[in-house]
Amino acid sequence: MASQPIDVHIREVGPRDGLQNEPPIATDQKIELINALSRTGHQRVEAVSFVHPKAIPQMADADEVWSKVDRNPDVLYSALIPNLRGLQRAIDAGFKEVNVVLSASDTHNRANLNRPTEDSVAELDALVELAHANDVFIELVIATSFGCPFEGDTDPKRVAGIVERAEAAGIDRIAFGDTTGMGTPKRVKDLLEAVDTNLPRLMHFHNTRGTALANIMVALDYGVDQFDASVGGLGGCPYAPGASGNVATEEVVHMLHDMGYNTGIDLDKLLEVAEMAEEMVGHELPSGVYKAGPRTRLVERS
Amino acid sequence: MASQPIDVHIREVGPRDGLQNEPPIATDQKIELINALSRTGHQRVEAVSFVHPKAIPQMADADEVWSKVDRNPDVLYSALIPNLRGLQRAIDAGFKEVNVVLSASDTHNRANLNRPTEDSVAELDALVELAHANDVFIELVIATSFGCPFEGDTDPKRVAGIVERAEAAGIDRIAFGDTTGMGTPKRVKDLLEAVDTNLPRLMHFHNTRGTALANIMVALDYGVDQFDASVGGLGGCPYAPGASGNVATEEVVHMLHDMGYNTGIDLDKLLEVAEMAEEMVGHELPSGVYKAGPRTRLVERS
Repeated sequence: MASQPIDVHIREVGPRDGLQNEPPIATDQKIELINALSRTGHQRVEAVSFVHPKAIPQMADADEVWSKVDRNPDVLYSALIPNLRGLQRAIDAGFKEVNVVLSASDTHNRANLNRPTEDSVAELDALVELAHANDVFIELVIATSFGCPFEGDTDPKRVAGIVERAEAAGIDRIAFGDTTGMGTPKRVKDLLEAVDTNLPRLMHFHNTRGTALANIMVALDYGVDQFDASVGGLGGCPYAPGASGNVATEEVVHMLHDMGYNTGIDLDKLLEVAEMAEEMVGHELPSGVYKAGPRTRLVERS
Repeated sequence: MASQPIDVHIREVGPRDGLQNEPPIATDQKIELINALSRTGHQRVEAVSFVHPKAIPQMADADEVWSKVDRNPDVLYSALIPNLRGLQRAIDAGFKEVNVVLSASDTHNRANLNRPTEDSVAELDALVELAHANDVFIELVIATSFGCPFEGDTDPKRVAGIVERAEAAGIDRIAFGDTTGMGTPKRVKDLLEAVDTNLPRLMHFHNTRGTALANIMVALDYGVDQFDASVGGLGGCPYAPGASGNVATEEVVHMLHDMGYNTGIDLDKLLEVAEMAEEMVGHELPSGVYKAGPRTRLVERS
């Protein structure tokens, strides 16, 4: 009897985390990108974020984008939010899943959210209460889980402490954010050893230093089956111009399918969307599988 | 008692496999590159190849390059050769280590070496005899070990058969070449399960589809401790313009050091050589650690 492939769940973050780190594109193009991604077999798409438009002008049109998307009933769309105000906007817009973000690093939390980590953690009870009162699934994203560009290494115990409080608050899932590509196989192992939780775990890796797929291998060994990825590798690194950001969805899907995992995603369709995304942002995207094609694509001998 | 780091041996292939896939650069620059790499703590540098200049014009000046290099006594320099004629040239030039290459795939062997794989394998006895008569260490590189761009997947049993004959012929080490980046964690595992040998094993991975560091993780699990890598990720993919070739040495060293392995290489010095290599070839190199800096390099909060 052949062994059954195991399902791995990919969340497409190109329209949100990807575009957030690219020069702004037109509202219509964002809608077109989300619609195209929704036809690739993707089951989860992070569509927009409800953040202050002064902080992230790329997401100022979130309400308009979301109101005009052709929503595919087979796709679960989510929105990223920084606080209660963002959650209310997401609820008002009709989202049934949100990801609230905070940073394990205090300096990064202050830079990103203008308050210390503790203040963000203290808000989790109210966030969960409001979300669940509206039948909204709420994930906590712990940014800088593997290191902070200002502070350096993140102590896995500090992350574990945040997870414990999130679980007590009633958060539905934990995402570990490798915000600036400081994750390595060692850091992933140390974190997953340190964090003791019954909550579903999701890994958000950046490929800034080439380690993303190696990190995913380690996480799979620890039973993690949920990963973020960005079409074409859309989105760069805010602290290193020209460097890569989010791991490219095609590279994740290509490796996982080769290993016998099932993602539900049609790689050929996804590669077409990568081409579309590259045209939208007007510069080369870093995805290796997009540039070279899948390993199964043969060359004619000249 | 703290655990001791384990040694991993990196061979720098930028001057050979890297430059072979770049537009030609001046002889003086090649010498400068090899000299600079020899001062990074690298213990092994693949300096040149002795191939027919019509096949690879980038290596036509191999004799001149090698005669003018400032040879560091702490560095073991090697040359790649395709056949007996190349071996004689390497011996005449004074090399004490050579890597003879053949392809597991017949179509690739014909394209690269103008003869079927079997003819290359049949020459191994004579190659070993000539090498050892001259106190030269001889490695066999099995190109297309994980897949062929013309034929597709490579049967690990076919590779295992070549290894068996190489061992019988007296070859000193086996290198498995991921010639066009078709290696994946699954393919690496399948190959290392299939190949039963007492010879030292070396892995030559390309990062064309993002999997190189994940592949290295798998190989480490199988006890492999020798890897090829190219400074800056020098050298592209001959079948996919713009795509990556050899895994960048900085990315390998950066991950291994973080995991507690010792390579003897000074990453900061290596990054300076990556910058030099980028200037020489005149285009952006793909190394993420070169672009973004090591994970330990912090950012000032603005």
